[in-house]
Amino acid sequence: MRINQYCNFAARILTLSYTHWKMDVNNKINATIITIGDELLIGQTIDTNSAWIASQLNKIGITILRRVAVGDEWNAIWTALEEEGKQADIILITGGLGPTSDDITKPLLCKFFGGKLIKDQGALDNVIEIFTKKLNRPLLERNLKQAEVPDNCIVIQNKRGTAPGMMFEKNNVIYVSMPGVPHEMKGMMEDDVIPHLLKKYSISPVQHRTLLTAGIGESFLAEKLVKFESELPEHIKLAYLPNYGMVRLRLSDLDANSKPQIIEEWFEKLKSDVEEFMVVDEDLSLQQVIARKLLASNQTLSIAESCTGGYISHLITQMAGSSQFFLGSVVSYANEMKKDALNVPKEVIQQHGVVSKETVEKMAEGVRKLSKADFGLATSGIMGPGGGTDQKPVGFVCVGLSTKEKTISTTFQFRFDRKRNIELTAINALDYLRKNMG
Amino acid sequence: MRINQYCNFAARILTLSYTHWKMDVNNKINATIITIGDELLIGQTIDTNSAWIASQLNKIGITILRRVAVGDEWNAIWTALEEEGKQADIILITGGLGPTSDDITKPLLCKFFGGKLIKDQGALDNVIEIFTKKLNRPLLERNLKQAEVPDNCIVIQNKRGTAPGMMFEKNNVIYVSMPGVPHEMKGMMEDDVIPHLLKKYSISPVQHRTLLTAGIGESFLAEKLVKFESELPEHIKLAYLPNYGMVRLRLSDLDANSKPQIIEEWFEKLKSDVEEFMVVDEDLSLQQVIARKLLASNQTLSIAESCTGGYISHLITQMAGSSQFFLGSVVSYANEMKKDALNVPKEVIQQHGVVSKETVEKMAEGVRKLSKADFGLATSGIMGPGGGTDQKPVGFVCVGLSTKEKTISTTFQFRFDRKRNIELTAINALDYLRKNMG
Repeated sequence: MRINQYCNFAARILTLSYTHWKMDVNNKINATIITIGDELLIGQTIDTNSAWIASQLNKIGITILRRVAVGDEWNAIWTALEEEGKQADIILITGGLGPTSDDITKPLLCKFFGGKLIKDQGALDNVIEIFTKKLNRPLLERNLKQAEVPDNCIVIQNKRGTAPGMMFEKNNVIYVSMPGVPHEMKGMMEDDVIPHLLKKYSISPVQHRTLLTAGIGESFLAEKLVKFESELPEHIKLAYLPNYGMVRLRLSDLDANSKPQIIEEWFEKLKSDVEEFMVVDEDLSLQQVIARKLLASNQTLSIAESCTGGYISHLITQMAGSSQFFLGSVVSYANEMKKDALNVPKEVIQQHGVVSKETVEKMAEGVRKLSKADFGLATSGIMGPGGGTDQKPVGFVCVGLSTKEKTISTTFQFRFDRKRNIELTAINALDYLRKNMG
Repeated sequence: MRINQYCNFAARILTLSYTHWKMDVNNKINATIITIGDELLIGQTIDTNSAWIASQLNKIGITILRRVAVGDEWNAIWTALEEEGKQADIILITGGLGPTSDDITKPLLCKFFGGKLIKDQGALDNVIEIFTKKLNRPLLERNLKQAEVPDNCIVIQNKRGTAPGMMFEKNNVIYVSMPGVPHEMKGMMEDDVIPHLLKKYSISPVQHRTLLTAGIGESFLAEKLVKFESELPEHIKLAYLPNYGMVRLRLSDLDANSKPQIIEEWFEKLKSDVEEFMVVDEDLSLQQVIARKLLASNQTLSIAESCTGGYISHLITQMAGSSQFFLGSVVSYANEMKKDALNVPKEVIQQHGVVSKETVEKMAEGVRKLSKADFGLATSGIMGPGGGTDQKPVGFVCVGLSTKEKTISTTFQFRFDRKRNIELTAINALDYLRKNMG
């Protein structure tokens, strides 16, 4: 018996145990995500595609079993396709379709599904259009090769790039191969893959209800919710999703036949149990909650950022429509910017230091007046790794808030690295604003 | 024969084929990363841990075979440990060690390795210290339980949190379980895991040389490098790592016995082949290159950000030491901020519009004068989804640069979603600065 015969035999036996496992998860439609690329295995690229794909499939009720990343290596990709195909109903593959020679995915898929490469006219037209009309660049032979696809796949045209997607079916498992470039992959998922899956399977989406808490740790929340959790029926699951000092609580009803009011009732119970720490009873970010409040009250915000260096403004302006309530900010890294742009008196800085409640209050006031905003928010702190002292160690932060009626401030002490200190300062400054918005 | 006997039998057979595969990758030390958590499978969390771990192991010459993410589900975790253990020498596990009830990893590891849970005095002292001294919070029973570990593991004390790490060995495979909180995991890796692996295996690190290019697409680079690639010896590999209009080229020497000058010689050839597009011949980001140039020439930078909303400032201030050359910025989202803080004449905005070369030049000049910087960089554009017109569609961007000698500007047209348009504008604005710094 040769090696690959052993493999096939082993594979058939494994199928038995996997079938058993598949039934454990309520006969749902199960998907596995395979991402391909050496860059994922040497850590030069963070895989954001998988999270996005998972969230989209989750919304339409498809359960993700596993996410697997492999390199641009023939055996590794082949084994992953084979093994994951035994467990899942759908295999979504991203990456490995670029025009350079380290991309071997397409010839491999061709062989795996027993097809042969042919030129696809739609993909060819697309490549030609992109190069001649959009990029105004000469078309190279290797770009034309991108229009080749196995003759036994459904071609997914790429409206945002040159590499077409491909959909295969084998042993009742659907395999979808998409480029690794995030916006190309997202376009294909939204325009083609999700509609196809919705049509193919008729499944009710999993019902989720999520709320956001702040100011309480995961373990304290869990302690508060011991009774709640013990009373939950088996088909309703509670998950703790901690992130930078905030914890989201997500309730999921895994029973597709449940009436919506069942999860609603449990969600109401959950809300009353964590009432004092709840920021919002929806799956919103803190900045979305603030945006909503400002828009509702027709008020405006501006920010003076020292230690956060523009990060809070970035969090706000990432949201479409933020120009309706966000007027702008001053990133006052140098002391001169604090004096010249924000009118912080030189004496205040000299007497109390740059990182002080007094300075941060003047900064908040200064930016509010400069921009004529209703709220002025300000941060100043020591983010590290250098700059700490005994009185004001790395992670020491002052946050100020100024309105027409009052100017107030508070302090925090974080204990992390620069990146995380910046993120925590931003989130806590925004939460300070939220609590004091009235 | 019962199901699990079938499994064991299948597993033994599979080992044969995996052993064969292992030999394919040059008898290197191979690791697989397993991340545990439902939040990874529903897409609420982006897995940044894996990329970081991969980059650290890569540096010391350990090859990552696969990255696998599974949910908080007993069978899924068990199967992953079993299957991945057949292929890799080292299994690094993150997540699933929190104090809440959806974390089942520790009891599972205990059973998997045939140990029993005991209280570890070091871990207990740590939990008590964190709660009583640092957090000043009452200690809950579930926190004390975090100090429990299987009696057959090496405990890795957690200096940054409450959950201890655990190291096991089974069938000559090392398994390390760490918390999913990034800075806790990183601390354990740096302080304990990597030193342990370095001691255990004596392997030479893989040699990498990386350069950064801008202004040329992946396929054009590949076309330029056809000859270069065809001449490369088999043990030297070239990878294309595209990211937002920039492509990094990484050369790796997979032969542990190679002399450093071999990769050096190929790297020199590569450099001369891509000379006109090369930003830097090191693995640096664009903002690091700019920082280095400014520090070397003792010059300073300030920024006026309209459409990028603080993102460029954030990219700069993420770097420790940026206060040595970065003075600050004005995020002028409202027109009043452009006028009041940046002194952009009302008439310029009225005549040419907010998104125009004329306005962005005044913004660049304004922020340079306000902050007394050597360089003033400015952005204005339409990031979408709304706000586009026929003349100035979504993705249209103006970038201005002002120095004591001159003020210049350029335009770009991007075609993506809001998030990506912001990122592309930031990178291209920084590259415009780099090219015109002299």
